[in-house]
Amino acid sequence: MKFHTEYLTMNVPQRFQIVHITENVNSALKKSGIREGMVLVSAMHITAGVFINDLEPGIMEDIEEMLEHLAPYGPNYRHHRTGEDNGDAHLKNILVGHQVIIPITAGALDLGPWQQVFYAEFDGRRKKRVVIKVMGE
Amino acid sequence: MKFHTEYLTMNVPQRFQIVHITENVNSALKKSGIREGMVLVSAMHITAGVFINDLEPGIMEDIEEMLEHLAPYGPNYRHHRTGEDNGDAHLKNILVGHQVIIPITAGALDLGPWQQVFYAEFDGRRKKRVVIKVMGE
Amino acid sequence: MKFHTEYLTMNVPQRFQIVHITENVNSALKKSGIREGMVLVSAMHITAGVFINDLEPGIMEDIEEMLEHLAPYGPNYRHHRTGEDNGDAHLKNILVGHQVIIPITAGALDLGPWQQVFYAEFDGRRKKRVVIKVMGE
Repeated sequence: MKFHTEYLTMNVPQRFQIVHITENVNSALKKSGIREGMVLVSAMHITAGVFINDLEPGIMEDIEEMLEHLAPYGPNYRHHRTGEDNGDAHLKNILVGHQVIIPITAGALDLGPWQQVFYAEFDGRRKKRVVIKVMGE
Repeated sequence: MKFHTEYLTMNVPQRFQIVHITENVNSALKKSGIREGMVLVSAMHITAGVFINDLEPGIMEDIEEMLEHLAPYGPNYRHHRTGEDNGDAHLKNILVGHQVIIPITAGALDLGPWQQVFYAEFDGRRKKRVVIKVMGE
Repeated sequence: MKFHTEYLTMNVPQRFQIVHITENVNSALKKSGIREGMVLVSAMHITAGVFINDLEPGIMEDIEEMLEHLAPYGPNYRHHRTGEDNGDAHLKNILVGHQVIIPITAGALDLGPWQQVFYAEFDGRRKKRVVIKVMGE
């Protein structure tokens, strides 16, 4: 069994931003030399997410609007008693999820025709990391 | 390490429908001959989901009602500027998630007594695929 | 490839409660002797969740408040026609998700500095199980 582990450093200047990272995942897969297995793509922070959807700007805005509606920035979350102001970002992480697993078949990401991988920053303006771990043979 | 990959073709006539697929996952496991490992069940589309819950029709209706409330069909999503009308389906995919990993122990799906696997179609009336990848020994 | 499987028994006296289980996952990892791979942590019930976030009590209360807002306890869910009263717990399971996969690198959980693993009980007062499966080399 072979393993290849990489870390992306994200440095998003906005509070909320969705970043397309399929090429980073593909690059890690190529370096791994793995032909069958899977790749785990996982945000290493509790105020960020990782998800798969379509590379279409309107969808990204629709996702932001929905998340702002379900877990709005600003209100007086209990988490803010610690001095933080990012309670909404923790809740967005819960709703979106922080990781995906992509199957690898015949040396390629076994994704559908429109599936792309995204990092979702919910509390930017600081460095964060994403782990990409390729596992298989 | 052994791998077995199958693709289900879903062809749901309704826009929204939940389909029970535990038997398809079990069938792939049997064909794989794998005794220890895991199986990844992942929708290959960005307007569908995969989840685990109870095989009880009332729950399926409750899930649909909640998702219609959180990401309703119809409103003028920004995604619709592309000519599509399925912005809600992309958001439902984000909320439900598109994949599950099921542990395999002693040659069987290591699920709890009521856990069943479901495909959730959010924008049917077209063919879609689900990848089932069994990995282990 | 090596495998190590453990089952936690949860016995939460409240209906809703979030329980910190990172140490249980670490303990399973140590027993496995696995240095590279991943660990799957998955609730074996359809009225519970597993997620990763920060070990901060305010966040746990914020998560509860959000989930009570999105899928409130009490209303007459269709699932209640079966005699159950936990329709909300099934919906909370859908929103939070029931599993996480944690990468293992150099013999340790490859988590970010604030990432901790939690079990979320949505319908307690009965015994439930969580499967922890460590896989790798």
